[in-house]
Amino acid sequence: MKIAIVGSGALGLYYGALLQRGGEDVHFLLRSDYDAISRDGLRVFSLNGDFHLAQIKAYRESADIGTVDLVLVGLKTGANSMFSPLISPLLHDQTQILTLQNGLGNEEALAELFGAERILGGVAFLCSNRGRPGSVHHLGAGRVVMGEHVRVNDERVQTLAALFRHCTVDCRSTDDLTKSRWEKLVWNIPFNGLSALLLQSVDRLLAVPATRTLLADIMGEVIEAANGQNLRSPIPAEYAETMLTFTDNMGVYKPSMQIDREEAREMELGAIFRTPLEFGQRQGIAMARVEMLATLLEQAEQRQ
Amino acid sequence: MKIAIVGSGALGLYYGALLQRGGEDVHFLLRSDYDAISRDGLRVFSLNGDFHLAQIKAYRESADIGTVDLVLVGLKTGANSMFSPLISPLLHDQTQILTLQNGLGNEEALAELFGAERILGGVAFLCSNRGRPGSVHHLGAGRVVMGEHVRVNDERVQTLAALFRHCTVDCRSTDDLTKSRWEKLVWNIPFNGLSALLLQSVDRLLAVPATRTLLADIMGEVIEAANGQNLRSPIPAEYAETMLTFTDNMGVYKPSMQIDREEAREMELGAIFRTPLEFGQRQGIAMARVEMLATLLEQAEQRQ
Repeated sequence: MKIAIVGSGALGLYYGALLQRGGEDVHFLLRSDYDAISRDGLRVFSLNGDFHLAQIKAYRESADIGTVDLVLVGLKTGANSMFSPLISPLLHDQTQILTLQNGLGNEEALAELFGAERILGGVAFLCSNRGRPGSVHHLGAGRVVMGEHVRVNDERVQTLAALFRHCTVDCRSTDDLTKSRWEKLVWNIPFNGLSALLLQSVDRLLAVPATRTLLADIMGEVIEAANGQNLRSPIPAEYAETMLTFTDNMGVYKPSMQIDREEAREMELGAIFRTPLEFGQRQGIAMARVEMLATLLEQAEQRQ
Repeated sequence: MKIAIVGSGALGLYYGALLQRGGEDVHFLLRSDYDAISRDGLRVFSLNGDFHLAQIKAYRESADIGTVDLVLVGLKTGANSMFSPLISPLLHDQTQILTLQNGLGNEEALAELFGAERILGGVAFLCSNRGRPGSVHHLGAGRVVMGEHVRVNDERVQTLAALFRHCTVDCRSTDDLTKSRWEKLVWNIPFNGLSALLLQSVDRLLAVPATRTLLADIMGEVIEAANGQNLRSPIPAEYAETMLTFTDNMGVYKPSMQIDREEAREMELGAIFRTPLEFGQRQGIAMARVEMLATLLEQAEQRQ
């Protein structure tokens, strides 16, 4: 399958590398790593075993890739305004677009530009970082849950999930992408938000009873808003407690939004906060604490 | 009148100096400034005119002061556990105790130890800072609104307010101290809280529309809780907008809690947040945003 990786950050490089190693025809659209990867290939340092891809098809411009069968979108959501120039040159009639980006609104934005039928989404549970130019570090997890944006009862997503599995990605398909997206937000909103605001790793938040209660209260708001989104089955209230226990077991962990803030990069506040708030409001569900946290993070991001 | 100043920070030194200059017999209980003030007296740098008091009655121990007619309490509320050893040696049967401390719960704590009848409270609208040892800077305002803790229809508070006015303190008495305390909290909770959390002065908070809305929402919660406290007349909802406009006119201003956090001093989270939250809860009034802000500040105060 001819695949283009658009957004070759830690996520795009990691999954792109696994797909190429598994035998797929992968083309990487690169910016900062172009020189290093063209010269030396791509090194993956992974807890599943390190490997090196000596030959990488590297490009600076989408037009040079030509059309592909699958576009894998791994852009930071702050770059979504670049969808059109980056992706348009890659599309033929049957091209599928799979976004593995964070948060909500990415499938909708892609559908608006390129048609809803070709859009799939995936929720990636991946802990990875960029390394030196030409390398990526896989630190934990890696599962992808993928689903159709609008198509129903379609074998396409199962075929794609099987291709990912063949390439050693832990991957399953879902018939309720919306639910998977919101399930991830139940974790992302409180933990990314509070860690980024307070610059404290998740273990420190969980250690203080009042903060633990606040985390649970925020999760409760997100679960309520999720269950107003016409899911096939609701997220149970106990999911909050499950996520707290799950996170207890992560130990010292800095969520990506905390790292973004520490490194003075833009935080993904639109996809992870403002769009979910809008989706809630459309169903008449206010999330007072999530709204407050979003406002505090936006204020914290204001330059001095 | 023989007066003891207990808690000779910026507030205690400033009002103590005005009372002594006005002719009262003022005794200062001192810690860090004892040596400087014993040697050189007390310098007040004030926008109403600088002055110097060459002779100060300075003490390290309350017992050396003996009993007094009035104890003026200016301690940081974090030091309230020291009430008994600091104040007990100063009391005769008729000694009045006036607390000018921040927030809620101070009159109650004093009443518990020393009897409710002798307690008065004052809300100080004062902008002042410690300077070098032996000096205090008065930067703005200075009004005191004082009232009885439990006594009613009593001339005592009017007599005391008149004494303060005689000593050039802008002072008035109120027959509803509870209301005055909560009115100040309508400002203190959102502005001290958000400035301390985000380390941004009030003008920066007010400049962002979503944050301005959050400030107003927090004020609305405090006003609702205040109006559940059996006030003689309610605080109107419009008071929030009045406070926003009032604060617009303050320009670049750092609330005391922000300065406390920047200088790694304990923030007054009990008196300004947790006790008001308790008083609200006793009346069945939850303040979700205030609770969240308190929790965030406590978490921010956790040592690395």
